[in-house]
Amino acid sequence: MASRRNFIRTTTLGITAATFYPLINKGESAISKHPASASELPVGIADFTFRHFDIPQSIQMMQRLDIHSMSIKDFHLPLNSTKEKIDEVVKQYRDGDVTIYAVGVIYMKDKDAVDQAFDYARNVGVDIIVGVPNHDLIDYAEQKVKDYNIKLAIHNHGPEDKLYPNPQIAYDLIKNKDARMGLCLDIGHAQRAGVVPAKAVLKYGKRIFDLHIKDVTKAENDGKAIEIGRGIIDFPSFVKALRKIKYPGHCSIEFEKDMKDPLPGIAESIGYFKGVKAGTV
Amino acid sequence: MASRRNFIRTTTLGITAATFYPLINKGESAISKHPASASELPVGIADFTFRHFDIPQSIQMMQRLDIHSMSIKDFHLPLNSTKEKIDEVVKQYRDGDVTIYAVGVIYMKDKDAVDQAFDYARNVGVDIIVGVPNHDLIDYAEQKVKDYNIKLAIHNHGPEDKLYPNPQIAYDLIKNKDARMGLCLDIGHAQRAGVVPAKAVLKYGKRIFDLHIKDVTKAENDGKAIEIGRGIIDFPSFVKALRKIKYPGHCSIEFEKDMKDPLPGIAESIGYFKGVKAGTV
Repeated sequence: MASRRNFIRTTTLGITAATFYPLINKGESAISKHPASASELPVGIADFTFRHFDIPQSIQMMQRLDIHSMSIKDFHLPLNSTKEKIDEVVKQYRDGDVTIYAVGVIYMKDKDAVDQAFDYARNVGVDIIVGVPNHDLIDYAEQKVKDYNIKLAIHNHGPEDKLYPNPQIAYDLIKNKDARMGLCLDIGHAQRAGVVPAKAVLKYGKRIFDLHIKDVTKAENDGKAIEIGRGIIDFPSFVKALRKIKYPGHCSIEFEKDMKDPLPGIAESIGYFKGVKAGTV
Repeated sequence: MASRRNFIRTTTLGITAATFYPLINKGESAISKHPASASELPVGIADFTFRHFDIPQSIQMMQRLDIHSMSIKDFHLPLNSTKEKIDEVVKQYRDGDVTIYAVGVIYMKDKDAVDQAFDYARNVGVDIIVGVPNHDLIDYAEQKVKDYNIKLAIHNHGPEDKLYPNPQIAYDLIKNKDARMGLCLDIGHAQRAGVVPAKAVLKYGKRIFDLHIKDVTKAENDGKAIEIGRGIIDFPSFVKALRKIKYPGHCSIEFEKDMKDPLPGIAESIGYFKGVKAGTV
Protein backbone atom coordinates (compact mmCIF):
# COMPACT_ATOMS: atom_id res chain seq x y z
CA MET A 1 0.00 0.00 0.00
CA ALA A 2 2.81 2.39 0.85
CA SER A 3 4.37 2.12 -2.58
CA ARG A 4 1.05 2.71 -4.28
CA ARG A 5 0.51 5.88 -2.27
CA ASN A 6 3.96 7.10 -3.20
CA PHE A 7 3.25 6.43 -6.81
CA ILE A 8 0.17 8.58 -6.65
CA ARG A 9 1.92 11.36 -4.79
CA THR A 10 4.45 11.70 -7.56
CA THR A 11 2.17 11.45 -10.55
CA THR A 12 1.51 14.58 -12.56
CA LEU A 13 -1.61 13.50 -14.39
CA GLY A 14 -3.73 16.25 -12.93
CA ILE A 15 -4.13 14.87 -9.45
CA THR A 16 -1.99 15.93 -6.56
CA ALA A 17 -1.50 14.20 -3.29
CA ALA A 18 -3.73 16.86 -1.80
CA THR A 19 -6.68 15.62 -3.81
CA PHE A 20 -6.41 12.36 -1.94
CA TYR A 21 -5.41 13.78 1.41
CA PRO A 22 -6.10 12.47 3.91
CA LEU A 23 -6.86 8.88 3.15
CA ILE A 24 -9.81 7.46 4.98
CA ASN A 25 -8.48 6.43 8.34
CA LYS A 26 -9.44 3.11 9.79
CA GLY A 27 -11.67 4.58 12.47
CA GLU A 28 -13.81 6.49 10.03
CA SER A 29 -14.02 3.76 7.46
CA ALA A 30 -15.35 1.36 10.07
CA ILE A 31 -18.28 3.69 10.49
CA SER A 32 -18.78 4.95 7.00
CA LYS A 33 -17.97 2.07 4.75
CA HIS A 34 -21.01 -0.10 5.04
CA PRO A 35 -23.97 1.81 6.44
CA ALA A 36 -27.22 -0.10 6.66
CA SER A 37 -28.75 1.66 3.68
CA ALA A 38 -25.80 0.91 1.42
CA SER A 39 -27.08 -2.60 0.84
CA GLU A 40 -30.23 -1.31 -0.85
CA LEU A 41 -29.70 0.00 -4.37
CA PRO A 42 -25.93 -0.05 -3.84
CA VAL A 43 -23.98 2.67 -5.59
CA GLY A 44 -21.11 1.63 -7.83
CA ILE A 45 -18.95 3.21 -10.50
CA ALA A 46 -18.88 2.59 -14.23
CA ASP A 47 -15.15 2.59 -14.92
CA PHE A 48 -15.54 4.75 -18.03
CA THR A 49 -15.68 7.58 -15.48
CA PHE A 50 -11.95 7.01 -14.86
CA ARG A 51 -10.79 6.91 -18.46
CA HIS A 52 -8.09 9.53 -17.82
CA PHE A 53 -6.72 7.77 -14.75
CA ASP A 54 -4.78 4.64 -14.05
CA ILE A 55 -5.83 1.88 -11.69
CA PRO A 56 -4.17 3.20 -8.49
CA GLN A 57 -5.63 6.64 -9.08
CA SER A 58 -9.08 5.16 -9.69
CA ILE A 59 -8.86 3.10 -6.51
CA GLN A 60 -7.84 6.12 -4.46
CA MET A 61 -10.80 8.08 -5.78
CA MET A 62 -13.20 5.23 -4.99
CA GLN A 63 -11.79 4.96 -1.47
CA ARG A 64 -12.35 8.64 -0.93
CA LEU A 65 -15.86 8.33 -2.36
CA ASP A 66 -16.57 5.30 -0.16
CA ILE A 67 -17.49 3.30 -3.27
CA HIS A 68 -16.45 -0.34 -3.44
CA SER A 69 -18.09 -1.81 -6.56
CA MET A 70 -17.10 -1.21 -10.15
CA SER A 71 -17.88 -2.29 -13.67
CA ILE A 72 -14.45 -2.45 -15.35
CA LYS A 73 -13.65 -0.95 -18.76
CA ASP A 74 -11.07 -2.45 -21.09
CA PHE A 75 -8.63 0.48 -20.92
CA HIS A 76 -7.84 -0.78 -17.41
CA LEU A 77 -7.81 -4.45 -18.45
CA PRO A 78 -7.54 -5.20 -22.18
CA LEU A 79 -9.94 -7.80 -23.55
CA ASN A 80 -7.04 -9.94 -24.78
CA SER A 81 -5.32 -10.08 -21.39
CA THR A 82 -3.85 -13.35 -20.17
CA LYS A 83 -5.44 -15.05 -17.19
CA GLU A 84 -2.37 -14.07 -15.16
CA LYS A 85 -2.80 -10.40 -16.04
CA ILE A 86 -6.50 -10.58 -15.24
CA ASP A 87 -5.83 -12.16 -11.86
CA GLU A 88 -3.24 -9.49 -11.11
CA VAL A 89 -5.59 -6.61 -11.92
CA VAL A 90 -8.56 -8.13 -10.09
CA LYS A 91 -6.31 -8.54 -7.04
CA GLN A 92 -5.12 -4.96 -7.37
CA TYR A 93 -8.70 -3.73 -7.10
CA ARG A 94 -9.55 -6.21 -4.35
CA ASP A 95 -6.57 -5.00 -2.33
CA GLY A 96 -8.05 -1.53 -2.69
CA ASP A 97 -11.39 -2.78 -1.32
CA VAL A 98 -13.02 -2.62 -4.75
CA THR A 99 -15.04 -5.51 -6.14
CA ILE A 100 -15.41 -5.82 -9.91
CA TYR A 101 -19.01 -6.91 -10.47
CA ALA A 102 -19.27 -6.54 -14.27
CA VAL A 103 -17.20 -5.95 -17.40
CA GLY A 104 -17.92 -3.45 -20.14
CA VAL A 105 -19.05 -1.71 -22.12
CA ILE A 106 -17.74 -4.29 -24.62
CA TYR A 107 -18.47 -3.82 -28.32
CA MET A 108 -19.09 -7.02 -30.27
CA LYS A 109 -18.97 -6.74 -34.03
CA ASP A 110 -18.37 -10.40 -34.88
CA LYS A 111 -18.50 -13.86 -33.31
CA ASP A 112 -14.85 -13.69 -32.29
CA ALA A 113 -15.60 -10.59 -30.25
CA VAL A 114 -18.51 -12.37 -28.56
CA ASP A 115 -16.27 -15.34 -27.78
CA GLN A 116 -13.60 -13.07 -26.40
CA ALA A 117 -16.07 -11.14 -24.22
CA PHE A 118 -17.43 -14.28 -22.56
CA ASP A 119 -13.98 -15.77 -21.94
CA TYR A 120 -12.86 -12.43 -20.52
CA ALA A 121 -15.89 -12.18 -18.23
CA ARG A 122 -15.39 -15.72 -16.96
CA ASN A 123 -11.72 -15.04 -16.27
CA VAL A 124 -12.52 -11.80 -14.44
CA GLY A 125 -15.08 -13.75 -12.44
CA VAL A 126 -18.18 -11.66 -13.05
CA ASP A 127 -21.68 -12.76 -14.02
CA ILE A 128 -22.60 -9.71 -16.09
CA ILE A 129 -21.25 -8.47 -19.40
CA VAL A 130 -22.35 -4.97 -20.30
CA GLY A 131 -22.25 -5.15 -24.05
CA VAL A 132 -23.09 -3.69 -27.40
CA PRO A 133 -23.50 -6.63 -29.77
CA ASN A 134 -24.36 -6.13 -33.40
CA HIS A 135 -28.02 -7.06 -33.84
CA ASP A 136 -27.21 -10.09 -35.97
CA LEU A 137 -25.14 -11.52 -33.11
CA ILE A 138 -27.99 -11.68 -30.60
CA ASP A 139 -28.75 -15.37 -31.24
CA TYR A 140 -25.09 -16.27 -31.05
CA ALA A 141 -24.70 -14.26 -27.85
CA GLU A 142 -27.73 -15.99 -26.36
CA GLN A 143 -26.07 -19.36 -26.89
CA LYS A 144 -22.96 -18.08 -25.12
CA VAL A 145 -25.11 -16.81 -22.24
CA LYS A 146 -26.46 -20.33 -21.84
CA ASP A 147 -23.06 -21.99 -22.21
CA TYR A 148 -21.30 -19.70 -19.75
CA ASN A 149 -24.22 -18.84 -17.44
CA ILE A 150 -23.15 -15.21 -17.68
CA LYS A 151 -25.75 -12.49 -18.21
CA LEU A 152 -25.55 -10.10 -21.14
CA ALA A 153 -26.78 -6.58 -20.38
CA ILE A 154 -27.14 -4.58 -23.57
CA HIS A 155 -26.18 -0.95 -23.11
CA ASN A 156 -28.15 1.79 -24.85
CA HIS A 157 -26.67 4.99 -26.13
CA GLY A 158 -28.59 8.06 -27.24
CA PRO A 159 -30.38 9.17 -30.39
CA GLU A 160 -27.13 9.60 -32.31
CA ASP A 161 -26.26 5.89 -32.00
CA LYS A 162 -26.85 3.55 -34.90
CA LEU A 163 -27.17 0.27 -32.97
CA TYR A 164 -28.97 1.16 -29.75
CA PRO A 165 -30.26 4.74 -29.87
CA ASN A 166 -32.66 3.94 -27.02
CA PRO A 167 -33.25 1.05 -24.60
CA GLN A 168 -36.47 -0.07 -26.29
CA ILE A 169 -34.55 -1.35 -29.32
CA ALA A 170 -32.39 -3.50 -27.08
CA TYR A 171 -35.39 -4.68 -25.10
CA ASP A 172 -37.27 -5.74 -28.21
CA LEU A 173 -34.30 -7.85 -29.29
CA ILE A 174 -33.98 -9.73 -26.00
CA LYS A 175 -37.46 -9.81 -24.47
CA ASN A 176 -38.23 -13.28 -25.87
CA LYS A 177 -34.74 -14.64 -25.31
CA ASP A 178 -33.18 -16.43 -22.37
CA ALA A 179 -33.93 -14.66 -19.07
CA ARG A 180 -30.21 -13.89 -18.72
CA MET A 181 -30.42 -11.57 -21.75
CA GLY A 182 -31.23 -8.06 -20.56
CA LEU A 183 -30.24 -4.42 -20.34
CA CYS A 184 -27.76 -2.07 -18.80
CA LEU A 185 -30.04 0.94 -18.77
CA ASP A 186 -28.08 4.14 -19.29
CA ILE A 187 -30.52 6.67 -17.91
CA GLY A 188 -28.79 9.72 -19.35
CA HIS A 189 -28.78 8.43 -22.90
CA ALA A 190 -32.32 7.13 -22.39
CA GLN A 191 -33.55 10.52 -21.22
CA ARG A 192 -31.91 12.18 -24.24
CA ALA A 193 -33.83 9.73 -26.40
CA GLY A 194 -37.06 10.83 -24.76
CA VAL A 195 -37.33 7.76 -22.54
CA VAL A 196 -38.13 8.68 -18.94
CA PRO A 197 -35.89 6.54 -16.70
CA ALA A 198 -38.57 5.73 -14.11
CA LYS A 199 -40.95 4.56 -16.83
CA ALA A 200 -38.20 2.49 -18.47
CA VAL A 201 -37.49 0.79 -15.15
CA LEU A 202 -41.12 -0.17 -14.71
CA LYS A 203 -41.38 -1.32 -18.32
CA TYR A 204 -38.22 -3.42 -18.52
CA GLY A 205 -38.37 -4.68 -14.92
CA LYS A 206 -36.47 -7.91 -14.35
CA ARG A 207 -34.62 -7.50 -17.62
CA ILE A 208 -32.58 -4.66 -16.15
CA PHE A 209 -29.30 -6.15 -14.92
CA ASP A 210 -27.20 -3.03 -14.56
CA LEU A 211 -27.60 0.75 -14.51
CA HIS A 212 -25.46 3.67 -15.62
CA ILE A 213 -26.77 6.58 -13.64
CA LYS A 214 -26.03 10.19 -14.48
CA ASP A 215 -27.87 13.42 -15.21
CA VAL A 216 -28.28 15.49 -18.36
CA THR A 217 -29.02 19.13 -19.02
CA LYS A 218 -31.98 18.44 -21.28
CA ALA A 219 -34.15 15.65 -22.63
CA GLU A 220 -32.88 16.12 -26.15
CA ASN A 221 -30.14 14.76 -28.36
CA ASP A 222 -27.74 17.55 -27.42
CA GLY A 223 -28.27 17.28 -23.66
CA LYS A 224 -24.94 17.41 -21.85
CA ALA A 225 -23.59 15.46 -18.90
CA ILE A 226 -23.95 17.28 -15.58
CA GLU A 227 -23.73 16.52 -11.88
CA ILE A 228 -26.64 14.36 -10.71
CA GLY A 229 -29.28 16.66 -9.28
CA ARG A 230 -28.43 19.66 -11.45
CA GLY A 231 -30.03 18.27 -14.58
CA ILE A 232 -33.53 17.29 -15.59
CA ILE A 233 -33.80 13.63 -14.61
CA ASP A 234 -36.40 12.95 -11.93
CA PHE A 235 -34.44 10.88 -9.42
CA PRO A 236 -37.12 10.44 -6.73
CA SER A 237 -39.42 8.80 -9.30
CA PHE A 238 -36.51 6.73 -10.60
CA VAL A 239 -35.68 5.44 -7.10
CA LYS A 240 -39.34 4.66 -6.44
CA ALA A 241 -39.50 2.66 -9.66
CA LEU A 242 -36.34 0.71 -8.76
CA ARG A 243 -37.88 -0.15 -5.41
CA LYS A 244 -41.13 -1.18 -7.05
CA ILE A 245 -39.38 -3.73 -9.29
CA LYS A 246 -37.10 -4.73 -6.40
CA TYR A 247 -34.08 -4.01 -8.56
CA PRO A 248 -31.32 -6.28 -7.24
CA GLY A 249 -28.31 -4.82 -9.04
CA HIS A 250 -25.95 -1.88 -8.77
CA CYS A 251 -26.60 1.77 -9.49
CA SER A 252 -23.33 2.74 -11.09
CA ILE A 253 -22.41 6.35 -11.58
CA GLU A 254 -20.99 7.12 -15.00
CA PHE A 255 -19.75 10.68 -14.84
CA GLU A 256 -18.82 12.24 -18.15
CA LYS A 257 -18.31 15.91 -17.27
CA ASP A 258 -14.94 17.37 -16.21
CA MET A 259 -13.44 13.98 -17.02
CA LYS A 260 -9.88 15.11 -16.31
CA ASP A 261 -10.86 16.29 -12.84
CA PRO A 262 -14.02 14.34 -12.02
CA LEU A 263 -13.79 13.83 -8.26
CA PRO A 264 -15.94 16.74 -7.05
CA GLY A 265 -18.63 16.02 -9.64
CA ILE A 266 -18.70 12.32 -8.88
CA ALA A 267 -18.90 13.12 -5.18
CA GLU A 268 -21.80 15.52 -5.66
CA SER A 269 -23.57 12.96 -7.87
CA ILE A 270 -23.12 10.16 -5.36
CA GLY A 271 -24.22 12.42 -2.53
CA TYR A 272 -27.36 13.42 -4.40
CA PHE A 273 -28.32 9.87 -5.28
CA LYS A 274 -27.79 8.71 -1.70
CA GLY A 275 -29.78 11.69 -0.45
CA VAL A 276 -32.66 10.84 -2.76
CA LYS A 277 -32.53 7.23 -1.53
CA ALA A 278 -32.66 8.45 2.07
CA GLY A 279 -35.42 10.97 1.46
CA THR A 280 -37.67 9.00 -0.85
CA VAL A 281 -40.16 6.62 0.71
CA MET B 1 -10.94 37.31 -14.04
CA ALA B 2 -8.00 36.12 -16.12
CA SER B 3 -5.46 37.28 -13.56
CA ARG B 4 -7.39 35.60 -10.78
CA ARG B 5 -7.35 32.32 -12.64
CA ASN B 6 -3.65 32.63 -13.23
CA PHE B 7 -3.12 33.31 -9.60
CA ILE B 8 -4.88 30.11 -8.70
CA ARG B 9 -3.00 28.09 -11.27
CA THR B 10 0.28 29.07 -9.69
CA THR B 11 -0.61 28.70 -6.04
CA THR B 12 0.88 25.82 -4.11
CA LEU B 13 -1.54 25.73 -1.21
CA GLY B 14 -2.70 22.24 -1.96
CA ILE B 15 -4.94 22.99 -4.94
CA THR B 16 -3.88 22.61 -8.52
CA ALA B 17 -5.45 24.10 -11.57
CA ALA B 18 -6.87 20.65 -12.23
CA THR B 19 -9.06 20.88 -9.17
CA PHE B 20 -10.81 23.82 -10.77
CA TYR B 21 -10.76 22.62 -14.35
CA PRO B 22 -12.87 23.27 -16.26
CA LEU B 23 -14.71 26.30 -15.00
CA ILE B 24 -18.42 26.19 -15.38
CA ASN B 25 -19.13 27.38 -18.86
CA LYS B 26 -21.86 29.89 -19.47
CA GLY B 27 -24.18 27.44 -21.16
CA GLU B 28 -24.19 25.04 -18.28
CA SER B 29 -24.41 27.66 -15.59
CA ALA B 30 -27.48 29.10 -17.22
CA ILE B 31 -29.18 25.79 -16.62
CA SER B 32 -27.64 24.73 -13.38
CA LYS B 33 -27.23 27.91 -11.42
CA HIS B 34 -30.72 28.62 -10.28
CA PRO B 35 -32.97 25.58 -10.54
CA ALA B 36 -36.50 26.01 -9.30
CA SER B 37 -35.89 24.03 -6.12
CA ALA B 38 -32.86 26.11 -5.17
CA SER B 39 -35.11 28.84 -3.80
CA GLU B 40 -36.49 26.53 -1.12
CA LEU B 41 -34.10 25.89 1.76
CA PRO B 42 -31.25 27.39 -0.24
CA VAL B 43 -27.83 25.88 0.34
CA GLY B 44 -25.00 28.19 1.32
CA ILE B 45 -21.53 27.88 2.73
CA ALA B 46 -20.21 28.80 6.15
CA ASP B 47 -16.87 30.38 5.28
CA PHE B 48 -15.06 28.55 8.08
CA THR B 49 -15.06 25.68 5.57
CA PHE B 50 -12.48 27.65 3.55
CA ARG B 51 -10.11 28.53 6.37
CA HIS B 52 -7.09 27.19 4.46
CA PHE B 53 -7.93 29.08 1.26
CA ASP B 54 -7.89 32.66 0.12
CA ILE B 55 -10.82 34.52 -1.36
CA PRO B 56 -10.21 33.70 -5.06
CA GLN B 57 -9.77 30.02 -4.24
CA SER B 58 -12.96 30.03 -2.17
CA ILE B 59 -14.90 31.70 -4.95
CA GLN B 60 -13.64 29.18 -7.49
CA MET B 61 -14.77 26.31 -5.29
CA MET B 62 -18.20 27.86 -4.79
CA GLN B 63 -18.56 28.35 -8.53
CA ARG B 64 -17.76 24.74 -9.13
CA LEU B 65 -20.19 23.73 -6.38
CA ASP B 66 -22.87 26.00 -7.83
CA ILE B 67 -23.20 27.73 -4.46
CA HIS B 68 -23.76 31.46 -4.39
CA SER B 69 -24.44 32.42 -0.76
CA MET B 70 -21.93 32.60 2.05
CA SER B 71 -21.59 33.60 5.65
CA ILE B 72 -18.17 35.27 5.82
CA LYS B 73 -15.55 34.55 8.47
CA ASP B 74 -13.11 37.19 9.69
CA PHE B 75 -10.00 35.49 8.29
CA HIS B 76 -11.26 36.65 4.89
CA LEU B 77 -12.30 40.08 6.14
CA PRO B 78 -10.90 41.21 9.50
CA LEU B 79 -13.37 42.72 11.94
CA ASN B 80 -11.37 45.97 12.10
CA SER B 81 -11.37 46.47 8.33
CA THR B 82 -11.98 49.93 6.92
CA LYS B 83 -15.19 50.56 4.99
CA GLU B 84 -13.08 50.72 1.82
CA LYS B 85 -11.59 47.30 2.46
CA ILE B 86 -15.01 45.87 3.25
CA ASP B 87 -16.46 47.30 0.02
CA GLU B 88 -13.57 45.84 -1.94
CA VAL B 89 -14.00 42.33 -0.52
CA VAL B 90 -17.78 42.35 -0.83
CA LYS B 91 -17.34 43.35 -4.49
CA GLN B 92 -14.76 40.62 -4.99
CA TYR B 93 -17.31 38.03 -3.90
CA ARG B 94 -20.12 39.67 -5.83
CA ASP B 95 -18.01 39.62 -8.99
CA GLY B 96 -17.66 35.88 -8.38
CA ASP B 97 -21.46 35.54 -8.16
CA VAL B 98 -21.36 35.04 -4.40
CA THR B 99 -23.61 37.00 -2.05
CA ILE B 100 -22.53 37.46 1.56
CA TYR B 101 -25.69 37.05 3.61
CA ALA B 102 -24.23 36.94 7.13
CA VAL B 103 -21.03 37.54 9.10
CA GLY B 104 -19.52 35.23 11.67
CA VAL B 105 -18.94 33.37 13.79
CA ILE B 106 -17.90 36.49 15.75
CA TYR B 107 -16.83 36.10 19.37
CA MET B 108 -17.86 38.94 21.69
CA LYS B 109 -16.16 39.08 25.04
CA ASP B 110 -16.83 42.73 25.88
CA LYS B 111 -18.97 45.67 24.82
CA ASP B 112 -16.30 46.91 22.41
CA ALA B 113 -16.48 43.60 20.59
CA VAL B 114 -20.25 43.89 20.37
CA ASP B 115 -19.96 47.42 19.02
CA GLN B 116 -17.38 46.31 16.48
CA ALA B 117 -19.49 43.36 15.33
CA PHE B 118 -22.54 45.49 14.63
CA ASP B 119 -20.59 48.19 12.80
CA TYR B 120 -18.87 45.48 10.76
CA ALA B 121 -22.17 43.81 9.87
CA ARG B 122 -23.70 47.12 8.84
CA ASN B 123 -20.71 47.91 6.66
CA VAL B 124 -20.78 44.49 5.04
CA GLY B 125 -24.48 45.03 4.40
CA VAL B 126 -25.92 41.93 6.04
CA ASP B 127 -28.83 41.60 8.42
CA ILE B 128 -27.53 38.64 10.42
CA ILE B 129 -24.59 38.38 12.79
CA VAL B 130 -23.70 34.83 13.75
CA GLY B 131 -22.17 35.38 17.13
CA VAL B 132 -20.94 34.01 20.39
CA PRO B 133 -21.52 36.74 22.98
CA ASN B 134 -20.58 36.27 26.61
CA HIS B 135 -23.77 35.67 28.56
CA ASP B 136 -23.50 38.96 30.44
CA LEU B 137 -23.54 40.84 27.13
CA ILE B 138 -26.94 39.60 26.00
CA ASP B 139 -28.80 42.69 27.19
CA TYR B 140 -26.25 44.99 25.62
CA ALA B 141 -26.40 43.02 22.37
CA GLU B 142 -30.19 43.22 22.38
CA GLN B 143 -29.98 46.99 22.51
CA LYS B 144 -27.63 46.95 19.52
CA VAL B 145 -30.01 44.66 17.65
CA LYS B 146 -32.72 47.27 18.13
CA ASP B 147 -30.46 50.19 17.25
CA TYR B 148 -29.07 48.60 14.08
CA ASN B 149 -32.04 46.43 13.09
CA ILE B 150 -29.58 43.56 12.56
CA LYS B 151 -30.38 40.09 13.87
CA LEU B 152 -28.07 38.27 16.25
CA ALA B 153 -27.96 34.50 15.75
CA ILE B 154 -26.15 32.83 18.64
CA HIS B 155 -24.08 29.89 17.51
CA ASN B 156 -23.88 26.75 19.66
CA HIS B 157 -20.85 24.57 19.92
CA GLY B 158 -20.71 21.09 21.43
CA PRO B 159 -20.47 19.64 24.95
CA GLU B 160 -16.85 20.75 25.32
CA ASP B 161 -17.78 24.44 25.02
CA LYS B 162 -18.06 26.62 28.12
CA LEU B 163 -20.43 29.28 26.77
CA TYR B 164 -22.84 27.45 24.48
CA PRO B 165 -22.39 23.68 24.80
CA ASN B 166 -25.83 23.16 23.25
CA PRO B 167 -28.46 25.33 21.53
CA GLN B 168 -30.87 25.20 24.46
CA ILE B 169 -28.62 27.42 26.57
CA ALA B 170 -28.62 30.05 23.84
CA TYR B 171 -32.36 29.72 23.36
CA ASP B 172 -33.08 30.21 27.05
CA LEU B 173 -31.07 33.43 27.03
CA ILE B 174 -32.90 34.97 24.06
CA LYS B 175 -36.40 33.48 24.08
CA ASN B 176 -37.88 36.44 25.95
CA LYS B 177 -35.80 39.06 24.16
CA ASP B 178 -36.43 41.04 20.99
CA ALA B 179 -37.64 38.81 18.13
CA ARG B 180 -34.42 39.59 16.27
CA MET B 181 -32.43 37.69 18.89
CA GLY B 182 -32.14 34.05 17.83
CA LEU B 183 -29.94 31.13 16.92
CA CYS B 184 -27.56 29.86 14.32
CA LEU B 185 -28.22 26.20 14.94
CA ASP B 186 -25.10 24.13 14.34
CA ILE B 187 -26.62 20.71 13.84
CA GLY B 188 -23.38 18.77 14.20
CA HIS B 189 -22.46 20.28 17.53
CA ALA B 190 -26.10 19.97 18.61
CA GLN B 191 -26.19 16.29 17.74
CA ARG B 192 -22.96 15.72 19.67
CA ALA B 193 -24.67 17.38 22.65
CA GLY B 194 -27.53 14.89 22.36
CA VAL B 195 -29.89 17.39 20.71
CA VAL B 196 -31.64 15.89 17.68
CA PRO B 197 -31.56 18.55 14.92
CA ALA B 198 -35.13 17.95 13.72
CA LYS B 199 -36.47 18.30 17.25
CA ALA B 200 -34.39 21.44 17.81
CA VAL B 201 -35.84 22.97 14.67
CA LEU B 202 -39.40 22.33 15.81
CA LYS B 203 -38.63 23.61 19.30
CA TYR B 204 -36.82 26.83 18.39
CA GLY B 205 -38.88 27.57 15.28
CA LYS B 206 -38.88 31.22 14.30
CA ARG B 207 -35.88 31.91 16.49
CA ILE B 208 -33.64 30.02 14.07
CA PHE B 209 -32.05 32.58 11.76
CA ASP B 210 -29.18 30.56 10.32
CA LEU B 211 -27.99 26.96 10.10
CA HIS B 212 -24.62 25.29 9.99
CA ILE B 213 -25.30 21.92 8.45
CA LYS B 214 -22.86 19.02 8.60
CA ASP B 215 -22.79 15.41 9.71
CA VAL B 216 -21.01 13.65 12.56
CA THR B 217 -19.87 10.09 13.15
CA LYS B 218 -21.67 9.72 16.45
CA ALA B 219 -24.03 11.51 18.81
CA GLU B 220 -21.38 11.94 21.45
CA ASN B 221 -18.80 14.48 22.47
CA ASP B 222 -16.09 12.82 20.40
CA GLY B 223 -18.14 12.51 17.23
CA LYS B 224 -16.08 13.58 14.22
CA ALA B 225 -16.96 15.63 11.16
CA ILE B 226 -17.85 13.53 8.12
CA GLU B 227 -19.48 13.97 4.73
CA ILE B 228 -23.22 14.63 5.05
CA GLY B 229 -25.01 11.33 4.59
CA ARG B 230 -22.22 9.15 5.96
CA GLY B 231 -22.84 10.05 9.57
CA ILE B 232 -25.69 9.62 12.02
CA ILE B 233 -27.81 12.76 11.54
CA ASP B 234 -31.30 12.07 10.22
CA PHE B 235 -31.55 14.52 7.32
CA PRO B 236 -35.00 13.59 5.99
CA SER B 237 -36.52 14.38 9.40
CA PHE B 238 -34.47 17.55 9.60
CA VAL B 239 -35.71 18.75 6.19
CA LYS B 240 -39.30 17.92 7.12
CA ALA B 241 -38.93 19.97 10.30
CA LEU B 242 -37.52 22.93 8.38
CA ARG B 243 -40.48 22.79 6.02
CA LYS B 244 -42.90 22.56 8.93
CA ILE B 245 -41.60 25.78 10.48
CA LYS B 246 -41.29 27.36 7.03
CA TYR B 247 -37.66 28.13 7.70
CA PRO B 248 -36.84 31.18 5.58
CA GLY B 249 -33.05 31.24 5.88
CA HIS B 250 -30.03 29.50 4.42
CA CYS B 251 -28.79 25.98 5.02
CA SER B 252 -25.06 26.58 5.07
CA ILE B 253 -22.64 23.71 4.83
CA GLU B 254 -19.79 23.90 7.32
CA PHE B 255 -17.40 21.15 6.34
CA GLU B 256 -14.65 20.42 8.84
CA LYS B 257 -13.11 17.21 7.53
CA ASP B 258 -10.18 17.14 5.05
CA MET B 259 -10.00 20.91 5.49
CA LYS B 260 -6.90 21.26 3.30
CA ASP B 261 -8.65 19.48 0.44
CA PRO B 262 -12.34 19.90 1.15
CA LEU B 263 -13.88 20.11 -2.33
CA PRO B 264 -14.96 16.47 -2.83
CA GLY B 265 -16.39 16.27 0.69
CA ILE B 266 -18.26 19.55 0.36
CA ALA B 267 -19.59 18.40 -3.00
CA GLU B 268 -20.81 15.08 -1.61
CA SER B 269 -22.40 16.90 1.33
CA ILE B 270 -24.19 19.39 -0.88
CA GLY B 271 -25.32 16.63 -3.21
CA TYR B 272 -26.72 14.61 -0.33
CA PHE B 273 -28.59 17.55 1.17
CA LYS B 274 -30.07 18.50 -2.20
CA GLY B 275 -31.01 14.85 -2.79
CA VAL B 276 -32.78 14.67 0.54
CA LYS B 277 -34.63 17.90 -0.32
CA ALA B 278 -35.71 16.41 -3.65
CA GLY B 279 -36.70 13.06 -2.20
CA THR B 280 -38.42 14.14 0.99
CA VAL B 281 -42.05 15.18 0.78
